[in-house]
Amino acid sequence: MTVTTDTLLTVAGREVPATINGREVIPFQGVGKYKPGGIKAAPAIRSCADFPADGNKVIDLDREMVAGIKEALYRAGLMDGMTISTHHHFRNGDLVANAVFEAAAALGVKGLRWYPSACFPCQEGLIKYLEDGTIHHIEGSMNGPIGAFCSSGKMKGMAVLRSHGGRYQAVQDGEVHIDIAVLAAPTADPFGNATGDRGPSACGLLGFGLADSEYADHVIVVTDNLVPFPCYPWQIQGQNVDQVVHVDKVGIPERIVSGTTRVTKSPDRLLIAEHIAKFVRDVGIMKPGFSFQAGAGGITLAFAMFLKDFMKEAGVKASFVRGGSNQYLVEMLEEGLTPYILDGQTFDLEGVRSMRENAGHINTSPFTSYNYHGKGNFASMVDVVVLGATEVDVNFNANVVTHSDGRLLHGIGGWQNCLFSKCTILAVPSVRDRIPVILDEVTTMVGPGELVDVIATERGLCINPSRKDLVDAACGTEVPLLDIRELKEHVDQLCGGTVAVPKVGDKFVAAIKWVDGTVIDAIKETGPF
Amino acid sequence: MTVTTDTLLTVAGREVPATINGREVIPFQGVGKYKPGGIKAAPAIRSCADFPADGNKVIDLDREMVAGIKEALYRAGLMDGMTISTHHHFRNGDLVANAVFEAAAALGVKGLRWYPSACFPCQEGLIKYLEDGTIHHIEGSMNGPIGAFCSSGKMKGMAVLRSHGGRYQAVQDGEVHIDIAVLAAPTADPFGNATGDRGPSACGLLGFGLADSEYADHVIVVTDNLVPFPCYPWQIQGQNVDQVVHVDKVGIPERIVSGTTRVTKSPDRLLIAEHIAKFVRDVGIMKPGFSFQAGAGGITLAFAMFLKDFMKEAGVKASFVRGGSNQYLVEMLEEGLTPYILDGQTFDLEGVRSMRENAGHINTSPFTSYNYHGKGNFASMVDVVVLGATEVDVNFNANVVTHSDGRLLHGIGGWQNCLFSKCTILAVPSVRDRIPVILDEVTTMVGPGELVDVIATERGLCINPSRKDLVDAACGTEVPLLDIRELKEHVDQLCGGTVAVPKVGDKFVAAIKWVDGTVIDAIKETGPF
Repeated sequence: MTVTTDTLLTVAGREVPATINGREVIPFQGVGKYKPGGIKAAPAIRSCADFPADGNKVIDLDREMVAGIKEALYRAGLMDGMTISTHHHFRNGDLVANAVFEAAAALGVKGLRWYPSACFPCQEGLIKYLEDGTIHHIEGSMNGPIGAFCSSGKMKGMAVLRSHGGRYQAVQDGEVHIDIAVLAAPTADPFGNATGDRGPSACGLLGFGLADSEYADHVIVVTDNLVPFPCYPWQIQGQNVDQVVHVDKVGIPERIVSGTTRVTKSPDRLLIAEHIAKFVRDVGIMKPGFSFQAGAGGITLAFAMFLKDFMKEAGVKASFVRGGSNQYLVEMLEEGLTPYILDGQTFDLEGVRSMRENAGHINTSPFTSYNYHGKGNFASMVDVVVLGATEVDVNFNANVVTHSDGRLLHGIGGWQNCLFSKCTILAVPSVRDRIPVILDEVTTMVGPGELVDVIATERGLCINPSRKDLVDAACGTEVPLLDIRELKEHVDQLCGGTVAVPKVGDKFVAAIKWVDGTVIDAIKETGPF
Repeated sequence: MTVTTDTLLTVAGREVPATINGREVIPFQGVGKYKPGGIKAAPAIRSCADFPADGNKVIDLDREMVAGIKEALYRAGLMDGMTISTHHHFRNGDLVANAVFEAAAALGVKGLRWYPSACFPCQEGLIKYLEDGTIHHIEGSMNGPIGAFCSSGKMKGMAVLRSHGGRYQAVQDGEVHIDIAVLAAPTADPFGNATGDRGPSACGLLGFGLADSEYADHVIVVTDNLVPFPCYPWQIQGQNVDQVVHVDKVGIPERIVSGTTRVTKSPDRLLIAEHIAKFVRDVGIMKPGFSFQAGAGGITLAFAMFLKDFMKEAGVKASFVRGGSNQYLVEMLEEGLTPYILDGQTFDLEGVRSMRENAGHINTSPFTSYNYHGKGNFASMVDVVVLGATEVDVNFNANVVTHSDGRLLHGIGGWQNCLFSKCTILAVPSVRDRIPVILDEVTTMVGPGELVDVIATERGLCINPSRKDLVDAACGTEVPLLDIRELKEHVDQLCGGTVAVPKVGDKFVAAIKWVDGTVIDAIKETGPF
């Protein structure tokens, strides 16, 4: 195939660049339409003869983080243009990613690709390394200041945003080769077995690093709690680890709790949550043995609280719930409302405690839960999932990464992957900051409307007309049901008109991958010009 | 490289065939000398679009095993010449391997390669499929009647015996490609998550199937206990599974206990066990935080019993013990003498119970414990391991597969892998059935003498002179210490002479792989001619 134009169109008519950072693009072809060929990526074969027989892989330079990581990167053979990965298990409390690039800059390397599982405001300090050329570009879900930097058009390469499952898929499929993975571990042994559920910096699980540990050329575990072998559970397996760096502190677990992991106090948003819980109850999804997932975000957390009450009223128990775990899911587990939390990311310290203490609080990973290029995954087996969105449109397409002004301010997380549940409900206020949330066409298409079953607002719920079964099942609900186009018109009137199309430049600054590695949309620079 | 001769010599001077089943051989080059190149094997990329969204992969034909497996093999596209794997988690109680080849024969396919993790006398019925051409040859540790069949020269292809770690290594490195893996699972869910630690046929763990689940083209789980999703623990992950066959009964767990998993009652052999335990105590290996592994076999199990008493006397606790688990290790765990059993294979039903009930009784796999082509493994971190052997020689080389008549009657198991421990002790009676067990040169070299630290007999212990540190440490022990050549001479005199070199034909019938994939020795046919 020869690329003859600079842009391509997805099956949904979105314009995407024909190449990203020199690599040819396959545009989105529809849900389940693109079939991958070929074989998975394969790391180099190693030999025990090249590793210490006693299992001791520790570097300890007075527990000084930057010094230790610098030594480890040096031994790993860090060179210009390599790809380094880090992970967001500490969310906004991560200390390792900043240290990694401080160390890399001290080694004088340039043009690195950073492949985080997500980045957070705590990593704003890395912007200087994007400016000075230490980091060429980022491929990873971006959040806050770094997203804003990218939107402004200042990043040297093009950002690539992937879902958690898409990140695993890209590594597994060989689309992204990680040269050096650096994993912050709240507890590890000298061999490299590591866990996140215990230790002074316990943050929960380390599942976002799984792909990296399996496929990266070189794997560095950084821990502030070195324990004798065996560190168990071994969420990361020492057989995949090259070096263990012992430091003072890897992260601030209190900061895994953030705005997106606290229950909303807004009356409007609580109403949305209550609408959704009632809907789930009334349409018969909430029946014995059902399953649900509530993503991060104040409304979805509140949904779980309402649903819990309804379950208790009706005497209904779930067969499993999927996390992001938090205190509300933990209460459900400990009160016997579900035997299992299948947890992909810990959202508060109660989740961390429960993972450590409860046998039914189970670690999962993007491989088990979300990888679209496996023999199935958990996401499609969940009865109902409640997620957020920055925007939706009248065709049920949804956006989770940009605001209506075009700026890239959020990551995808597991959002795209969760759309495959049996009933996907997007919880959105109809208006945010006097701007309507329902549009004729979303600014960025991150999820195709055919996978969105319900859009839930404080005014009522809009069921996707293609889900006739849900429309029928909902006939007896007390929740207001609305036509999405009518709701949009009403909201536009209230706000004094439709949302203006954002002013953007010509240059693509970021691409949005679909779960199968195709490109579903792209984002243009917003200036200032 | 051009193969110019039919045989090659290993670094130890052993003659091995230049090709095995058409594939060129790399002869053994010494411990840690052969360095692998290249990348690991990589399975095909799959898509969730091709698997049921609700996770239901079940075939149930009235729970009839052969019918269900036949249907699954047909759907898997079984063809002539393919490689099928099965596993020995039920040891002599396996029912699945026989059913697999009955089904394959019914489908009319020929020339299959069987890649079991081990075979047992219960699979004697497969000899007819070796005779009629359904199975071309076996690559896997062989035991009893099938070993004897191979020795007689009747198998069409050459057998290849590998250690448990070598089996993982061969699959990982792409030396053996498994087309279809069939995994007997005591409990599974419709998605294919499977565990061995529970269910009516609970057999312990399923670690021998890990490589197969990761690398085989097609993975079939066969279970007699189908539970709702999620089956947890998921020792085998449904994301790697294509089909789940629901049947009446997959195995007879009582039969995992066999002659090699019962404590000896022989006074001579109990004396060997006591000698070893005293040695481990007296040389200072048995100190707080130490670790040990005792393999299958009556003497080594008795060793664990003696050691337990010494540990209690001295108030010493281990940091971990490695299994094959059995009631004696479980007692140590439950009495607080060790916080962890790192278990690779369950040897009795107490081991199964403990694995299910005790958080410190941990599943391991040939990947974690034994794979030599990883970034280290557990085996080399163990302070002392006690193993058996069929023969040893004055250079401390050892044999574990053939008898002195040349017949192949045993598999390697984890034996080769365990030789990498910090102190390897081989427990052997000096005489078996009036035949000396210490030879000038072992019939088959399975383990090189440089890795064998002590040979323990009822008459006393022989320390490898290369381990000067052990010789020094042993100066105060009450255990008799002997020179191996003097011991050999003494035993030969008692038995009326040295062991006769076995009469063998010209044809190689089996090759013995070293842990790094090189060939360390080969076995010739023994007739009858």
